[in-house]
Amino acid sequence: MSTQLNVEALHGSLADPAISSMNLLNELIDEYPAAISMAAGRPYEEFFDVRLIHDYLDAYCEHLRHGRKLAETAVTRTLFQYGATKGVIAELIARNLAEDEGIDAAPESVVVTVGCQEAMFLVLRALRADDRDVLLAPAPTYVGLTGAALLTDIPVWPVRSDENGIDLDDLTHQVKLAREAGKRVRACYVTPDFANPTATSMDLPSRHRLLDIAQDHGILLLEDNAYGLFGSERLPSLKSLDRSESVVYLGSFAKTGMPGARVGYAVADQQMAGGGLLADQLSKLKGMLTVNTSPIAQAVIAGKLLLNDFSLTKANTREIAIYQRNLRLTLSELDRRLGPHTEVTWNTPTGGFFVTITVPFVVDDELLEHAARDHGVLFTPMHHFYGGKGGFHQLRLSISLLTPELIQEGVTRLAALIIGRLH
Amino acid sequence: MSTQLNVEALHGSLADPAISSMNLLNELIDEYPAAISMAAGRPYEEFFDVRLIHDYLDAYCEHLRHGRKLAETAVTRTLFQYGATKGVIAELIARNLAEDEGIDAAPESVVVTVGCQEAMFLVLRALRADDRDVLLAPAPTYVGLTGAALLTDIPVWPVRSDENGIDLDDLTHQVKLAREAGKRVRACYVTPDFANPTATSMDLPSRHRLLDIAQDHGILLLEDNAYGLFGSERLPSLKSLDRSESVVYLGSFAKTGMPGARVGYAVADQQMAGGGLLADQLSKLKGMLTVNTSPIAQAVIAGKLLLNDFSLTKANTREIAIYQRNLRLTLSELDRRLGPHTEVTWNTPTGGFFVTITVPFVVDDELLEHAARDHGVLFTPMHHFYGGKGGFHQLRLSISLLTPELIQEGVTRLAALIIGRLH
Repeated sequence: MSTQLNVEALHGSLADPAISSMNLLNELIDEYPAAISMAAGRPYEEFFDVRLIHDYLDAYCEHLRHGRKLAETAVTRTLFQYGATKGVIAELIARNLAEDEGIDAAPESVVVTVGCQEAMFLVLRALRADDRDVLLAPAPTYVGLTGAALLTDIPVWPVRSDENGIDLDDLTHQVKLAREAGKRVRACYVTPDFANPTATSMDLPSRHRLLDIAQDHGILLLEDNAYGLFGSERLPSLKSLDRSESVVYLGSFAKTGMPGARVGYAVADQQMAGGGLLADQLSKLKGMLTVNTSPIAQAVIAGKLLLNDFSLTKANTREIAIYQRNLRLTLSELDRRLGPHTEVTWNTPTGGFFVTITVPFVVDDELLEHAARDHGVLFTPMHHFYGGKGGFHQLRLSISLLTPELIQEGVTRLAALIIGRLH
Repeated sequence: MSTQLNVEALHGSLADPAISSMNLLNELIDEYPAAISMAAGRPYEEFFDVRLIHDYLDAYCEHLRHGRKLAETAVTRTLFQYGATKGVIAELIARNLAEDEGIDAAPESVVVTVGCQEAMFLVLRALRADDRDVLLAPAPTYVGLTGAALLTDIPVWPVRSDENGIDLDDLTHQVKLAREAGKRVRACYVTPDFANPTATSMDLPSRHRLLDIAQDHGILLLEDNAYGLFGSERLPSLKSLDRSESVVYLGSFAKTGMPGARVGYAVADQQMAGGGLLADQLSKLKGMLTVNTSPIAQAVIAGKLLLNDFSLTKANTREIAIYQRNLRLTLSELDRRLGPHTEVTWNTPTGGFFVTITVPFVVDDELLEHAARDHGVLFTPMHHFYGGKGGFHQLRLSISLLTPELIQEGVTRLAALIIGRLH
């Protein structure tokens, strides 16, 4: 009997368009290396330096020796051996959260994960108990959230969003609809600060109202805050305003620390009925998924925190200025190249990595390939953030990785493509 | 409405005894730090040295600069930035597999994972399509396999095992029974070399017969080979004998490389009906689970391979000698302390980290706590490897982490406990 495998006989997630879309984008980047990529949401690279990895490792080891008073065998064991499932740098992360986010997190509520992606998976794996369970999320939403939901078989129930982020009236409406349909709403995923893909932020009254809605309806909020530092001003995170344990905070160091460390975390201080915290349940799941996050990778992030007084705002002073400059330049270049064409519009975020453009023609993967091949520019069709069910007149530009010259040239090429499609 | 959470409302895995058992063991180790632990299957620590991490990182960077001819910006980007989902060291792993295992693995069939645990999860997530799917595994079996199966909702269907590993007659019988029960047998997990927990190995004719059974019945074999190097002699791995793409190889560097790197891999060269390899499907799932394995962690393992001519057998010369010495010493001490008591028996593996002892009384977690508290010795009750459904007269001793003095003292303490329970 043949063991040749058919994708239809594998887990349903593998046949979902969402899981293939990221592959397609990566393939295009590989296929057209000369194209200017305004697609990838990667952090700026100019300050990367391999010596920093050594410095960060050394700083963490010094912290273990002198701050924690560990003997050299214990220092070595911390880095080399299997370690605690929840991780070894929870206290340092808690100090960072106090410093940068005004969040008072008990170290035992922190689970260090393999990037924010694993944190999302763990929370959804814990919350998805049976076929009734659904997760609310704004449309459009981050593809990583969609992917984690697919892997855990929890359906994503979309909520409208607008220029202020998630639409709170629609949120309460969708909770009602979902419950009428016999569903159990376990949580709502939300990125209040410069969300991927729209870069919109929620204003302060909306944050308070969202917390009230969550508490009133007994819904957890899963707060993703990967971009909060990268704005001209800061609003308090949901977690820092939370007084009812409604918020599970999904932490990322990919943009603020180092993507290559693949270190993130969840803060899950929700009390379990039988004692302990939701973090302890996530830790049990993690033990069976990745055992523990590499302590070497954790040490790299810890070293960066230690060498910057626990402030990633401080550590990213130069990067924040560059992202702000790039964002302003992108918006002014769009104005210059496309301003006269009033049928083309775009939003004007004040921070984050992205700008959304709306055009009067269909933006699909075919157009993207045409853009890469014939115009030498890459972007992300917005339908990828709607699970293929919307956004067919929008595209996302990423501004984080480029120099001013490449932004100018990229917008020029994009404008040529767009203007050529206008009537 | 309160958001206090009840474990019964969370995913079923969290209420399973298997997922709690590892927590219990860790708690006991913390609670009785003075007890001699013959419980943890951790690698020997004496040769750990923080400077090695720097050396390994440097060796990999040199390889990128001179072997791969990358510019410094590309070297830095490889370590700092998001990277390929399948990983960046597949070619080096393929060279290691050729060197140590006689396995001819195409680099594109390799997916680098966050430890072997993530590789197990990815394979089971891919294979579990619906409620009909089951996974065969020998009883007793590695708890990590049980955990990954719980997270993917795939039931483990047990197969008998004996002193030659999995019982092949029972395997064909169980395939028949499962199919009669309307189940779809997706794969059989097996550790042919010094399996955890029994340290038994399959002889060569059995390996060939197992491959024939897999091919005849169209079942994948998931080969875990975490301990293969640690014996007095080596038999060929299933994957090296496989001529029909029946074997998915689950690779671990935790015992042979460095546990703290948390790097493992899957070799999945099975052809998909629509083109591509099973590895490509695993990669899609990984992108939604952990995005990619930390390239810094991968670099550490790569450096160890590069500095040891791609041979982990060579890199572990001293460790292999120590594990062999510890195993012989443990067996001779058991003989000395318990030999006269013929109602107590144990197996005599020729490699690996473990010895199994069979006693004429119940070995449960209560006995373990008594052993820790009153005798100062820790072991692993074997029922943890049967999912709580067997093994109640057995215990597992681990020999990997201890000095000769601690082995002698540990066996002395254990013998006192056991003899005190004999009539």
